[in-house]
Amino acid sequence: METSPAFREFACADCEETFDADEIELRCPACGGLLVARYDHDLRTEPTRPPLPLARERRHSLDEGETPATDCPTLADEIGADRLLLKDEGRNPTGAVTDRGLAVAVSAGAAVGADAVSLPTTGNGGQSAAAYAGRAGVTAHSYVPSRCPFVNKAMINVHGGEMNVVEGRYPDALAAYEDSDGARFPVGPSSPYRRAGVKRLGYELLTGPAPSAIVVPTGHGIVLAAIHTAIEELRETGALDVTPRLYAAQPAGCAPIVDACGTADAVAATEQPDTIVGPLEVPDPAVGSLAVAAVDETGGRGVAVSDSDALQAAVDAAGTAGVELSATGGVALAGARELAAEFEGETVALVNPVAGSKEDDLLRSHLMSQGI
Amino acid sequence: METSPAFREFACADCEETFDADEIELRCPACGGLLVARYDHDLRTEPTRPPLPLARERRHSLDEGETPATDCPTLADEIGADRLLLKDEGRNPTGAVTDRGLAVAVSAGAAVGADAVSLPTTGNGGQSAAAYAGRAGVTAHSYVPSRCPFVNKAMINVHGGEMNVVEGRYPDALAAYEDSDGARFPVGPSSPYRRAGVKRLGYELLTGPAPSAIVVPTGHGIVLAAIHTAIEELRETGALDVTPRLYAAQPAGCAPIVDACGTADAVAATEQPDTIVGPLEVPDPAVGSLAVAAVDETGGRGVAVSDSDALQAAVDAAGTAGVELSATGGVALAGARELAAEFEGETVALVNPVAGSKEDDLLRSHLMSQGI
Ligand SMILES: [Zn+2]
Ligand SMILES: [Zn+2]
Repeated sequence: METSPAFREFACADCEETFDADEIELRCPACGGLLVARYDHDLRTEPTRPPLPLARERRHSLDEGETPATDCPTLADEIGADRLLLKDEGRNPTGAVTDRGLAVAVSAGAAVGADAVSLPTTGNGGQSAAAYAGRAGVTAHSYVPSRCPFVNKAMINVHGGEMNVVEGRYPDALAAYEDSDGARFPVGPSSPYRRAGVKRLGYELLTGPAPSAIVVPTGHGIVLAAIHTAIEELRETGALDVTPRLYAAQPAGCAPIVDACGTADAVAATEQPDTIVGPLEVPDPAVGSLAVAAVDETGGRGVAVSDSDALQAAVDAAGTAGVELSATGGVALAGARELAAEFEGETVALVNPVAGSKEDDLLRSHLMSQGI
Repeated sequence: METSPAFREFACADCEETFDADEIELRCPACGGLLVARYDHDLRTEPTRPPLPLARERRHSLDEGETPATDCPTLADEIGADRLLLKDEGRNPTGAVTDRGLAVAVSAGAAVGADAVSLPTTGNGGQSAAAYAGRAGVTAHSYVPSRCPFVNKAMINVHGGEMNVVEGRYPDALAAYEDSDGARFPVGPSSPYRRAGVKRLGYELLTGPAPSAIVVPTGHGIVLAAIHTAIEELRETGALDVTPRLYAAQPAGCAPIVDACGTADAVAATEQPDTIVGPLEVPDPAVGSLAVAAVDETGGRGVAVSDSDALQAAVDAAGTAGVELSATGGVALAGARELAAEFEGETVALVNPVAGSKEDDLLRSHLMSQGI
């Protein structure tokens, strides 16, 4: 693969073995551990942008990223923060933060000459993969659970992606993916390329308004892990002095990462996951260990919230701040409300991972349950 | 109203009477004509941004605008253009270009002390109005036809907007609006504030990649009129030498502006409008005369396309370029295909007024009709 000048190697987070880009696809070939990219930062040719494994010429882009961090004074007042910034990842090309990661992962697949990429997904990742696969001229195979939202299924089809709808929930889709043709380039949630792509979200927040706390709705843990890497890289290059605290927010019905934060325990899979917030119903997170490290090493915390509180938070934000949080994004605001005492006088950023319009049915149902 | 330093007056496009900001709401108080804002460009305090009537301190923002113009080489090749840029207005806060206009119009209502704003809308304008009204602390009353998409209705409710669902199509919603309480500040499609807000779309295109032709899916004609004003202002201030040609693209089932382009006739209302593209089913456009002038004075044309061609264009773009055009946006690409002979070797920009995910059902149904 044609790598960027600054890319040095992939390293296994478990066995510490290192690999060239051509030697890896998804996980450590030696032990199955998660892989992280390492760079020579003095060889970076685009100092204002985060380094990526892939050479610039090999990256397919739909102008993802550079999403706004919108000031929400009414929400800041409510929790006693000095500023509350909504980082709206719904403003990405397909309306979700997954675009950032799949842009890089699908490009990596195309760069090694694969004609197909493949992933298990709760939905948004599949829509993103299908979009970038269309762009890159490869085929994306998505394994989605039957509960996957209509919008994701419809748009995967519209992009001409191959879709395998698996009866059940995300673990069922994952099982079907694992039984599938292994010859396709994997772009699932443990891909180091996906975290590399999402890393820029951290750069945008940290080289801009530089919040002292960031609350992230968490499923697999990709966004937390990626922001953590951004922090480490920016500190290494001297661009960041203070470390923001990272907070994992999960639905109470599926909170394996929250449960592991602040403990010495590994992430344990949730036995009976149950949340209306589909993108976060991930009982056995792909990069859970990295997400817990992101929280614990930055002095943050985990926070679990009820579905009802998440939905109400999104509705409140739409009403008083005008911003369109999805149910998924509402998990961040509901979490921030729980954590308010820690944020007094601070600048807090919330990540909205998905456009509100993509979860309109969940938000509308919540109003219905209140007789509206 | 607290106006910006550069704002001079509103002028009637018909009787040429001029007015202070406080004297007008929607149309000319003397003759009912459309109003346009005039500025003293040497008094502009933000020279890189388009002037607005309203003082900066009075503007409520959700970080609308600054949407990407994404290069689509496969689509450019297909029509023989040098470059094809997709200006994706789906990347706005509520996923539609209407955000730009309603940001300014709702802010104007709040600035004059109104506690409610009101508009007839095919749907997206209502969603935008509800969002900015939430932000500004006023109530938005939307009159939507029963055929308005679920996503618009749901999100109007989520923002706490007042919604009046009127049985029928847009003219029925308009009639109900016209029978309603006139004391609310009007933010409907003839508002000069809405065109003032959308004008920045033109600035972004013209001070950036500067296409030689721009194809705009057209309902009321607001976007065309606003880009035309951007051209005039940029030429007046010496920032633009060449004038891009503006093209109106409409569904063949409702093409009153296209029919009037290149003729000496006024825009005549379409008798039996019929298109699946709801946002463009506007049989009697609010600013049709300005839209026709935009096309005719820049040397452009009107182009009418079938619903099926528009949907197929959106599906093709999603497949080969990865971009998510809505059915509404597909009208622009279908139009560009018809006009290909005029674009040879040029840089062409297409406007996608609405996010693809917001019209997922229309796109999916089109696949269904093909047995996919
Ligand atoms: Zn290993
Ligand atoms: Zn007049």
